[in-house]
Amino acid sequence: MKLYDYYRSSAAYRVRITLNLKRLEYEAIPISLLDGEQFSENYLQLNPNQRVPCLDTEHGTLSQSLAIIEYLDELHPQPALLPADPWQKAQCRSLSLLIACDIHPLNNLAVLNYLNSEWQIQQTEKMIWYHHWLKRGFTAFEHHLMHRTMPTDFCCGDTPTLADICLIPQVYNALRFDFDLTPFPLIQDIHRACEQLPAFQQAHPDRVHQDKT
Amino acid sequence: MKLYDYYRSSAAYRVRITLNLKRLEYEAIPISLLDGEQFSENYLQLNPNQRVPCLDTEHGTLSQSLAIIEYLDELHPQPALLPADPWQKAQCRSLSLLIACDIHPLNNLAVLNYLNSEWQIQQTEKMIWYHHWLKRGFTAFEHHLMHRTMPTDFCCGDTPTLADICLIPQVYNALRFDFDLTPFPLIQDIHRACEQLPAFQQAHPDRVHQDKT
Repeated sequence: MKLYDYYRSSAAYRVRITLNLKRLEYEAIPISLLDGEQFSENYLQLNPNQRVPCLDTEHGTLSQSLAIIEYLDELHPQPALLPADPWQKAQCRSLSLLIACDIHPLNNLAVLNYLNSEWQIQQTEKMIWYHHWLKRGFTAFEHHLMHRTMPTDFCCGDTPTLADICLIPQVYNALRFDFDLTPFPLIQDIHRACEQLPAFQQAHPDRVHQDKT
Repeated sequence: MKLYDYYRSSAAYRVRITLNLKRLEYEAIPISLLDGEQFSENYLQLNPNQRVPCLDTEHGTLSQSLAIIEYLDELHPQPALLPADPWQKAQCRSLSLLIACDIHPLNNLAVLNYLNSEWQIQQTEKMIWYHHWLKRGFTAFEHHLMHRTMPTDFCCGDTPTLADICLIPQVYNALRFDFDLTPFPLIQDIHRACEQLPAFQQAHPDRVHQDKT
C-alpha cells in the first residue's frame, strides 16, 4: 500500500496512526500541500478531490481519512478501532465526526489560504477564527467525555479508537496554534495517554518530518 | 424516537431521508436555527454540540448525522444503506464524507453568520465562498461518478445509499443558492432518480415545512 501523505495534514496523521496501530506496512509518498503538489495533473488522476490522505491499494485509490480508517479496520479487525456494541460504536463515530466535520474542515490550509487570498484576512483574525471553531468543538467534546458512564483511559474505553485517532491530530494543531487547553482537562488526559503509545509517537508530524529529512 | 430537526439543515435532512427509507416512526421536534434555539440551556443538555440533528433514543441522545445513519443502518439492516463489499463500502463512505467534510461544514449557517458578523462579508462575497467549496467538491464527486465501473441509477448501485443521502440535501442547497449544475450531469441524473422516491420526497425541506405550518 502507498499512502499519499503530508506530515502536517491532520487527516493524513489520523491514517498514519491507524496504519501503525494495525501494524501495516506502507510506503509514504509526501505531497507538499504548501507547494501545491495536490493540484498536479498526476495527483488529480489519483485523487480528484486534490487533498491528502489518499491510500493506493490493490483495488485502486481511496480518499477521505475516515473512510480509509474504517476500511482498514474492517479488513484487519485487530486491534478494533470501534466498540462492538452498536450504541457505543455510534457514540464513538459521533465524537470522531465532531472533529472531522465541525472543527477540522474550517481550520485546514485550503480555508486559511482562502481567507487570506480572497479577503486579506490577517494572521490575528485568522487565529481568532481558528480558535473559535476549536473552542466550540472541544467544549462539546469535553462535555461528552465528562458524561461517560465511567472514566476510561481513552475516549471510548481502555484502548484507542477512531475517536482518539481523530482527537490527537486536532490537539497537535491546537498546540501548534497556541490554543489554551486548560479548560479541557479530560482531552489533555487522553492526549497524555495516547502520547505514551508507539503507534501515536511514530505518526507524529515532527517524527515523520524528521525521518524524511 | 425523537428527532431534533430543522427543515433546512441539510444534516437533519439526511437523517429524515434515512428514517423514511427504513420506514421508522419518529417524532420530529423542530429546533429553529434561525432563532438560535440550538443555543438554549435545554438543548445544550441534549446535545452539547448545539447543532441539529440529534436523535433521542432509548439509550440517550446521539448527534452527528453520519453516526446516526450508520447506527440506524446497523439496527435496521433493510434496506441496506452501504454496499456489502468492503471496498465498495469504503468508496461509498468516501463519497459521503466528501459532502459531509469538504463541502457542508464550510457552507452551513453558523459559518455564514460568522463571516457576516465578524468580518462584515456581504452577501455577494458569501455566495462566491459558498459556490467555491461547492464547485470544488462537486467536481470531485462528478469525477468519481464518471469513473464508476458501470453506470448505475444511484451513486453506488441501483438502490440509494449513504452517498445519495448526503448528496441530495447538498443539491437542494446548491439549487437554493443559484449554483449552476450544468457541469455536473451525473449528479443531476442521481438527483432526478432520488426525487422519484417517496422517502426522499417526504424528507424534502419544503414538504416538512409545509406539513408543520
